Amino acid sequence: MASYDLRKSPGHLLRRAQQYAHDLYAASVGADGPTPRQFEVLHVVSKNEGLSQTDLVRATGIDRSTLADMIARMIDKGHLSRARTKEDARANAVSITAAGRRVLNSAMSGVAKAESGALGVLPKAQQAGFMKDLAAYADALDKLADGDAPSRGRKKKAAKKGGAKRKAKRGRR
Amino acid sequence: MASYDLRKSPGHLLRRAQQYAHDLYAASVGADGPTPRQFEVLHVVSKNEGLSQTDLVRATGIDRSTLADMIARMIDKGHLSRARTKEDARANAVSITAAGRRVLNSAMSGVAKAESGALGVLPKAQQAGFMKDLAAYADALDKLADGDAPSRGRKKKAAKKGGAKRKAKRGRR
Repeated sequence: MASYDLRKSPGHLLRRAQQYAHDLYAASVGADGPTPRQFEVLHVVSKNEGLSQTDLVRATGIDRSTLADMIARMIDKGHLSRARTKEDARANAVSITAAGRRVLNSAMSGVAKAESGALGVLPKAQQAGFMKDLAAYADALDKLADGDAPSRGRKKKAAKKGGAKRKAKRGRR
Repeated sequence: MASYDLRKSPGHLLRRAQQYAHDLYAASVGADGPTPRQFEVLHVVSKNEGLSQTDLVRATGIDRSTLADMIARMIDKGHLSRARTKEDARANAVSITAAGRRVLNSAMSGVAKAESGALGVLPKAQQAGFMKDLAAYADALDKLADGDAPSRGRKKKAAKKGGAKRKAKRGRR
């Protein structure tokens, strides 16, 4: 692989762009605000009260085991609350609390600033195309997830596998 | 910000794409191999023996304080070695060791597989455009870094600030 080149590596380039967007987020939202993923969860739950964890995995793209850990911590902090859904007693539905809504609202302007800064790195003429590509990437990932997990049983298995990988990664940081 | 939408959020979309690329990397290279950033450092050093840490920051986009930590650990493991450069006694040059080269070479096929999988998420027709956008993003970040840090003194300051932010992020995981 003598031809390997960081400038032609999707992994490297995605990591650089994502790191920059994350640094902007951290600078705008501050250490007292929610992390990017916490913000996403609060936002999605605020728009869709009573979502199950499975719904949240789909909406955010966060893997099941990471999401379960996050939700447990956010409930401990009083930002989310949990209640059994009427439809399915096994799937714990999640709601946002008043405190969670305050966290979400106080982060909003910082998030907006970071988002616009992250996109603003590119010349104006390239921004729409970039967003279109990224949205296509997310759509493709959604389709992959559907294809990998046609049944409920396989979906659970895939989520567990993803969780194990995530844990391995964490341990090596 | 009632109009906030994850599907239109560059931060969210970059995070999803990068997470997927990272998961592929972890699955292909395995827990015994180098992390993505370690791989990048090994690769860049192998192509340019005797790089200073400043050169490595530029080549990889990894911030100075994270890179310094990484290099110290990679030297401890025997994958890199350090020697004073002739040109600048203050800038510690870094070289790859035989063991480091073995780590790099053994990861290569896994990295190539992960890279091709990460790009392969998109339909063939969209791949070149996506890579072009991502490369433009990295170029724009390089220009920003140059603009933010016209002098050596300011460059150091900016790098320190980035490092502090990175540490804050780590602590909140």
